[in-house]
Amino acid sequence: MSNENIYNPHVSIDCVVFGFNGEKLKVLLIERTIKENNGLYNDKKLPGSIIFADEDLDTAASRVLNELTGLKNIYLSQFHSFGNPKRTENPRDILWLENTTQLKIGRIVTVGYVALIKIDRKIQFKNENTTANWFDLNEVLKMNLAFDHSEIIHKGLEYIRHNMDIEPHLLFELLPRKFTISQLRILYDTVHQSRSDVRNFQKKVAQWPYVVPLDEMETGVSHRAARLYKYRKTK
Amino acid sequence: MSNENIYNPHVSIDCVVFGFNGEKLKVLLIERTIKENNGLYNDKKLPGSIIFADEDLDTAASRVLNELTGLKNIYLSQFHSFGNPKRTENPRDILWLENTTQLKIGRIVTVGYVALIKIDRKIQFKNENTTANWFDLNEVLKMNLAFDHSEIIHKGLEYIRHNMDIEPHLLFELLPRKFTISQLRILYDTVHQSRSDVRNFQKKVAQWPYVVPLDEMETGVSHRAARLYKYRKTK
Repeated sequence: MSNENIYNPHVSIDCVVFGFNGEKLKVLLIERTIKENNGLYNDKKLPGSIIFADEDLDTAASRVLNELTGLKNIYLSQFHSFGNPKRTENPRDILWLENTTQLKIGRIVTVGYVALIKIDRKIQFKNENTTANWFDLNEVLKMNLAFDHSEIIHKGLEYIRHNMDIEPHLLFELLPRKFTISQLRILYDTVHQSRSDVRNFQKKVAQWPYVVPLDEMETGVSHRAARLYKYRKTK
Repeated sequence: MSNENIYNPHVSIDCVVFGFNGEKLKVLLIERTIKENNGLYNDKKLPGSIIFADEDLDTAASRVLNELTGLKNIYLSQFHSFGNPKRTENPRDILWLENTTQLKIGRIVTVGYVALIKIDRKIQFKNENTTANWFDLNEVLKMNLAFDHSEIIHKGLEYIRHNMDIEPHLLFELLPRKFTISQLRILYDTVHQSRSDVRNFQKKVAQWPYVVPLDEMETGVSHRAARLYKYRKTK
């Protein structure tokens, strides 16, 4: 192995946190401000950070999410690592990194984690240096995010789509404990980027043993109240 | 971010290459010899290497596999990254790394790739410094491999098991172009660590539109010749 080819990159973690407000799929992003020669520049990035020397990747992911949002005990799944040497090529990203880490940064390989959380979970949106916020996924996909974070979000979405077919419980992590079939359909369609027919979807759900109708209806809605359902774990 | 916590690990690639000889699932391993004070020590490891400064992860995975086995144009899927700080703690592994790379090695985060290949593909088993070989998966799982390579193989196996249910074509990468139902069943059971009933399995396969019976039978077998099948890509 020729030695001069070898180079130590930094390794970081980036978390794609999805939430669902009953209508839209949301992504949790951190807003950052960069002081440039000609003023301040604002954009958004995923919650992420370089790993510490003695940290396992999973531990680093939990720490990062906790530091930036206050969230604890979140189930984070590692889904893909991103190591294109060009992912840290934007001078704005390098400037920001060097300001925030006080390190000379070259290449960074980042390990992507995904989490699905109920959107009403208490989040500490503001802390000393950063502000976190929920953004509509559809809007986010049009934004110019920091680094390759758009690609990471795309890949994270692909991962949950892929895995929901094998592990349908993932879908219910995003819904309130009691939900309507309409909420379930909207979420399903958002994740699958599909548009289900209302009746066909109802037939499909009737075959899911883990979706159980309750003796309860929605309250406080202006339209005709719909039946509520809950998710029941099956082996 | 406190600077003294930050440390640049090396990033490497490890490839879990599965093959199937019609009876058993095999894994491609590299044999290594370590000169220790009290003589030579032999063990086995996955084909792997530290990434180069200008290499994307996918590129590094293809290069590594090519360098160690001569294999080209192999479809490699990234499945998981391993970053436990303790994974490079064994003095034997450190000694070997420092001898082969001429680098001072601390921590290494490795990105795991999996490939499924036909076992009769031409492999350059021997090259200047290394010897590659196929080993029975069941035997490999009992071996004491280098680093955390046993864990990486376990996780790679889990990945193909998980993905074969969604992408059944993966299974057929491992079979000869024309195969018997018995070969398919043995492979299926090996991957799923199950033991299918012969009749039930035949019923199951009859429902797979992508398994097509041929007007051909096995030849050169001592038992009653079985019908041959082929895999046909569907949408």
